[in-house]
Amino acid sequence: MSTAVYPGSFDPITNGHLGLIKRGLEVFDRLIIAVALNVRKEPCFSIDERLDMIREAVNNHPRCEIDTFEGLTINYAADKGANVILRGLRAVADFEYELQMANMNKKLNNSVETMFMMTEEEYFFVSSKTVKEVASLKGSVKGLVPTVVTRKLAEKFGSPVD
Amino acid sequence: MSTAVYPGSFDPITNGHLGLIKRGLEVFDRLIIAVALNVRKEPCFSIDERLDMIREAVNNHPRCEIDTFEGLTINYAADKGANVILRGLRAVADFEYELQMANMNKKLNNSVETMFMMTEEEYFFVSSKTVKEVASLKGSVKGLVPTVVTRKLAEKFGSPVD
Amino acid sequence: MSTAVYPGSFDPITNGHLGLIKRGLEVFDRLIIAVALNVRKEPCFSIDERLDMIREAVNNHPRCEIDTFEGLTINYAADKGANVILRGLRAVADFEYELQMANMNKKLNNSVETMFMMTEEEYFFVSSKTVKEVASLKGSVKGLVPTVVTRKLAEKFGSPVD
Amino acid sequence: MSTAVYPGSFDPITNGHLGLIKRGLEVFDRLIIAVALNVRKEPCFSIDERLDMIREAVNNHPRCEIDTFEGLTINYAADKGANVILRGLRAVADFEYELQMANMNKKLNNSVETMFMMTEEEYFFVSSKTVKEVASLKGSVKGLVPTVVTRKLAEKFGSPVD
Amino acid sequence: MSTAVYPGSFDPITNGHLGLIKRGLEVFDRLIIAVALNVRKEPCFSIDERLDMIREAVNNHPRCEIDTFEGLTINYAADKGANVILRGLRAVADFEYELQMANMNKKLNNSVETMFMMTEEEYFFVSSKTVKEVASLKGSVKGLVPTVVTRKLAEKFGSPVD
Amino acid sequence: MSTAVYPGSFDPITNGHLGLIKRGLEVFDRLIIAVALNVRKEPCFSIDERLDMIREAVNNHPRCEIDTFEGLTINYAADKGANVILRGLRAVADFEYELQMANMNKKLNNSVETMFMMTEEEYFFVSSKTVKEVASLKGSVKGLVPTVVTRKLAEKFGSPVD
Repeated sequence: MSTAVYPGSFDPITNGHLGLIKRGLEVFDRLIIAVALNVRKEPCFSIDERLDMIREAVNNHPRCEIDTFEGLTINYAADKGANVILRGLRAVADFEYELQMANMNKKLNNSVETMFMMTEEEYFFVSSKTVKEVASLKGSVKGLVPTVVTRKLAEKFGSPVD
Repeated sequence: MSTAVYPGSFDPITNGHLGLIKRGLEVFDRLIIAVALNVRKEPCFSIDERLDMIREAVNNHPRCEIDTFEGLTINYAADKGANVILRGLRAVADFEYELQMANMNKKLNNSVETMFMMTEEEYFFVSSKTVKEVASLKGSVKGLVPTVVTRKLAEKFGSPVD
Repeated sequence: MSTAVYPGSFDPITNGHLGLIKRGLEVFDRLIIAVALNVRKEPCFSIDERLDMIREAVNNHPRCEIDTFEGLTINYAADKGANVILRGLRAVADFEYELQMANMNKKLNNSVETMFMMTEEEYFFVSSKTVKEVASLKGSVKGLVPTVVTRKLAEKFGSPVD
Repeated sequence: MSTAVYPGSFDPITNGHLGLIKRGLEVFDRLIIAVALNVRKEPCFSIDERLDMIREAVNNHPRCEIDTFEGLTINYAADKGANVILRGLRAVADFEYELQMANMNKKLNNSVETMFMMTEEEYFFVSSKTVKEVASLKGSVKGLVPTVVTRKLAEKFGSPVD
Repeated sequence: MSTAVYPGSFDPITNGHLGLIKRGLEVFDRLIIAVALNVRKEPCFSIDERLDMIREAVNNHPRCEIDTFEGLTINYAADKGANVILRGLRAVADFEYELQMANMNKKLNNSVETMFMMTEEEYFFVSSKTVKEVASLKGSVKGLVPTVVTRKLAEKFGSPVD
Repeated sequence: MSTAVYPGSFDPITNGHLGLIKRGLEVFDRLIIAVALNVRKEPCFSIDERLDMIREAVNNHPRCEIDTFEGLTINYAADKGANVILRGLRAVADFEYELQMANMNKKLNNSVETMFMMTEEEYFFVSSKTVKEVASLKGSVKGLVPTVVTRKLAEKFGSPVD
């Protein structure tokens, strides 16, 4: 049985993330969305808010779990019995960082593989960061994030809900 | 059951390819090494030579098949009941081409996912092209390709076997 | 009055090209689609076929001309009284080449500016080259090129028309 | 009539910016230099200092306006009746960010186009950030920024004025 | 006699740095490891800690000096009578920044050349930043940094010493 | 004594090459311009023409030699007692290829280092390839190549000599 961990800060979850989750579930028997507790920058949403948004966006899926983790992703993945860390790739800048991380993880623990999927072209320009930037300037992010996130961003920034 | 197709021209197979095959077998239930018959440039080795080298390098592995294909990779993958096309990533130049191909394949057939693994850092500079270039100039490629390939390149180019 | 030259080999014209032409017409008073006669590689379609496909795809637009040219793009643009050479950008690889060309053109003739538009994300993976590749392997390119081009590619390669 | 908005933080304006403004005025009927009021990082110069430096550097040009704006660039551009947002491109890192922003802006408002010009090769290594870095270490930035900016940086950092 | 300055923050020194120092000593008569005192971000180790780690890692080498500097690297290099600033290159992101810095330095002082060496592939994914990140999450960095640095990171973060 | 080999096809030599040679002579005691005899593509100029142009452009320099070589660059460099292979870097595309070659060379022979210099920004867009392209379309390449090359290109392509 193949288990993939999909780690991230999901601050907040976007439709780009959701697309990857759906596509990952086509490939792996079990997928764990793992929200990192140790983030460098002050997050926009609390860990509970982020988990709530993910839960509402993903809805119930029998093979998909939602969890939080601390420490090294590779250790968390090994603890959960995962054989894959799943990551999305969008841009050259991502690529170089991910290449370094994948090689570092391989050095730390050889038994978990990092696998990548390319972000679908329609979400190529969508990241948690750009979404927050647009919402904070009162721009509409409809279609780029799940409905629950549009609503939450509207509460926080006064951005439009449609 | 997850089935991955690992397509390429394998002209010739390198230790970078072999590493990816081994790592792919840790993740997928079944892995098909698929040698493309329609290649744009004149290959260095005939299709039979390439298949022989792959067979000797991979040896017998119960969950690994070796095959050839013509036409679109995505159609071949769908025909074989695969849910994944597996590709290696090594450099930014790869990345952009692969990003375009993955999106094109998604458009052609939504039911097969393209997944990527980063080439291990020790094979970062090893490609079929650089290996042939070095061997053709009588340089040693030992450690970069399987033994059978070192031997075959030596026959063709007079490059050293160790 | 601003005049832009949009040069290329258009072998064949794609929906990515068409999108750029439409967007260019929103900005410039006059747009000249300029098909290069001197191309390095053997083209897939003759110059007349390419012009016919462009004409049918663009249809009649009062501010849009279709022309051919030989020699340096910058000289052609200056001869036509254009103040802009319009180019599309899609990938990092494009970017570097275009950066070099734009600086070379500036050195050759300071009075014409090169301006760039980013390809829309839905055509990010569409180029004349990938379209021909897919069609030659009998894949469908519907939605990626104008109808006339789908038909012409079908005639040439036996690729599906829908 | 074509109107281009050239947005930025201009903290401070460099000769690279000035080159782009001059070249933009060759193409567009009207050019608005738009200084963003909402900047993420603490600026080096106040908004008034930045505006003063731009005014002195640009001098009076009948078709060039200098303004400030808040909120989304695309909304500001639409409000001013602009059909173009003008941006400079210098490096691959710029390119990817700009590609994402241009697609995001297109999604937010389809009626304004983002157009790019390549920075002239002599200003390739000149950015507001590198200029401030050099001046803060008492290096000379003569020739990289307008005279007024050299003077202002000298006041702030004690860097040489020639 | 050729003298190279190898500047950096060395916070902390890694095996990637050490490899470059060793290789630089094969090429240049004299090599000065120059630790920058003015760093933008709060360093992890004090200047004395960093110097101590470098000293222990480099050991005594007759042609290698260890020093600190303030202000512009190019001025420091000129003051020391160096004709070369030595830099490592690892990734495209490095490359662009370094290209800009090298051209800026050339403008500031034409008599010192910036020269680059590619990081060995086994240290491709090793940077001071990733090393600190892994250690702070209690991961092992053995083999990526000198023994003294493993020990110092263990003291600071409680990461394993082997 | 440090000896650097500067290898290439020099088809033809450009002012970008010349700048690198001059700067290399500031750093290394001896510099060998090494023209590769085995080139993949049909060269524009014969080996004798290329050598003549280099000789005239470089003129006599007591520490600079001009030579030809066959086979692996690294073997040639080792045979000449060089400790450095000198290469120019201009673009990201160069960078990745050069990174792979430098690591391959290191594997082939550990005793010769590859060192890089960034091309000066004024020659950023100048390569043998772009120069030939412009001249073949009758554009002026004055200022981008030595006078002797302008003359030779004029003979071959009818491009202007000033």
